[in-house]
Amino acid sequence: MQGDSIPVEDRGLSYGDGLFETIAVREGRCRFLTAHLARLAAGCERLGIPVPDNRQIAAELGQLLGTTEYGTAKIIVTRGHGPRGYRQPVPCNPTRLVGMQRASPAIPPADGVRVRYCATLISRNPKLAGLKTLNRLEQVLARAEWTDNEIAEGLMLNDRGEVVCGTMSNLFYTQAGVLLTPELHECGVSGIMRQATIEAAQRLGIEVQERKVNQQDLQNAEDVFLSNALIGIWPVAELAGQEYRCSEVTNQIMRGLYAMGVIECGT
Amino acid sequence: MQGDSIPVEDRGLSYGDGLFETIAVREGRCRFLTAHLARLAAGCERLGIPVPDNRQIAAELGQLLGTTEYGTAKIIVTRGHGPRGYRQPVPCNPTRLVGMQRASPAIPPADGVRVRYCATLISRNPKLAGLKTLNRLEQVLARAEWTDNEIAEGLMLNDRGEVVCGTMSNLFYTQAGVLLTPELHECGVSGIMRQATIEAAQRLGIEVQERKVNQQDLQNAEDVFLSNALIGIWPVAELAGQEYRCSEVTNQIMRGLYAMGVIECGT
Repeated sequence: MQGDSIPVEDRGLSYGDGLFETIAVREGRCRFLTAHLARLAAGCERLGIPVPDNRQIAAELGQLLGTTEYGTAKIIVTRGHGPRGYRQPVPCNPTRLVGMQRASPAIPPADGVRVRYCATLISRNPKLAGLKTLNRLEQVLARAEWTDNEIAEGLMLNDRGEVVCGTMSNLFYTQAGVLLTPELHECGVSGIMRQATIEAAQRLGIEVQERKVNQQDLQNAEDVFLSNALIGIWPVAELAGQEYRCSEVTNQIMRGLYAMGVIECGT
Repeated sequence: MQGDSIPVEDRGLSYGDGLFETIAVREGRCRFLTAHLARLAAGCERLGIPVPDNRQIAAELGQLLGTTEYGTAKIIVTRGHGPRGYRQPVPCNPTRLVGMQRASPAIPPADGVRVRYCATLISRNPKLAGLKTLNRLEQVLARAEWTDNEIAEGLMLNDRGEVVCGTMSNLFYTQAGVLLTPELHECGVSGIMRQATIEAAQRLGIEVQERKVNQQDLQNAEDVFLSNALIGIWPVAELAGQEYRCSEVTNQIMRGLYAMGVIECGT
């Protein structure tokens, strides 16, 4: 990160009072940068944090990028320093952190990934739904449920038994030529790759439905896959003992994403 | 805080992956220190963070205390630094921050405080219920709902309409000589002053019930009050337009707390 440390009084640490973005650097560019910055700005608006200057962030990312061809950029915006207590500081001087890490793109799993269900529930709160906030303890606890490296991801349910997302990914499945994904009105992160996937499908004329999803729906699905800004698409080979194979619809979508620059979806 | 800054990669900032304690310093001592350190240790155990050495923290607090007679001590424990991603680092080297701030004790409001209901819901998750974690965005958003300095606190409800707590306090009411307080199985922080209040009541032979509480219950209450480690007890003079006066039971409890060292409850 640019700047190695932050003051301990920063509300990002005290309360998780902020947001972050994790961006794939591919072939020397921040992929879907406009979408990431737009989500960050929308999140700041919802939390009442002054919206950062996107041109400034883009310039900082550009400086850090240097000769990095492949890696991960991270942006954190917090409500900044303030006196003790939840009340928002006036004036508010947000903290902005921008970082860059070299890393090879994840190798797309040849036959898809193995996935489990997590016991840790994801809680519902419409005020925070969709946002990538710094409050991520539920994801941390869900991810702590397994250490088996053969399991790539865990799916999280809310208290109503609805399957919402993976710990670090969005969830899709296909059924009778339709692409389906959990709605995110009450919880979950509105992923940039989720949006790109929906757009790719729509361009291909594939019907997309955002809806409530339960475990039975996934049992009846033709296939299941996960999306995330860094991994692109991960087809699910096995979920809780059930095996899946990529549907033709999913293969089409992955080719569409590849054309949009998601190199992980190349064949 | 001891140490002015933390590395930006600390999971306390990235994910709110940690816990904190806010302790009243009164007459040169950390009040209810044993209870605070016990709650911190129990919280670490539940989150799977190595439990810090309480004697070391107590020693660090003692050093910082110096000649401070009145103030606020704060302890933050996070899961420490780790590689990107929710997966827990192995080994885990927790970050421990201990700080001290001079401050006069809050003056007990002569006639009680004015309180409102917040629209921001508190979400339910049994895995985090009771803990004072660094994930506090709901409290931040609830506290942002009002700026009127005449309003001292806002009460938060869950999605079932149950009143759980204030943004920074626990809730009590009395009815027919019984002390009642919301149960905290699904959300809310298990406050140190809440526990001290329950113990003070039990010593006085007052029946205490932890139960689900709704707004109607508070309308029917003889009186309502709030507790917090720094403020002691705040009798509620007005909640959402309804006025209350301290019941004899509450006055007894406040005298009991004063005898336990909660000087804010002195008359």
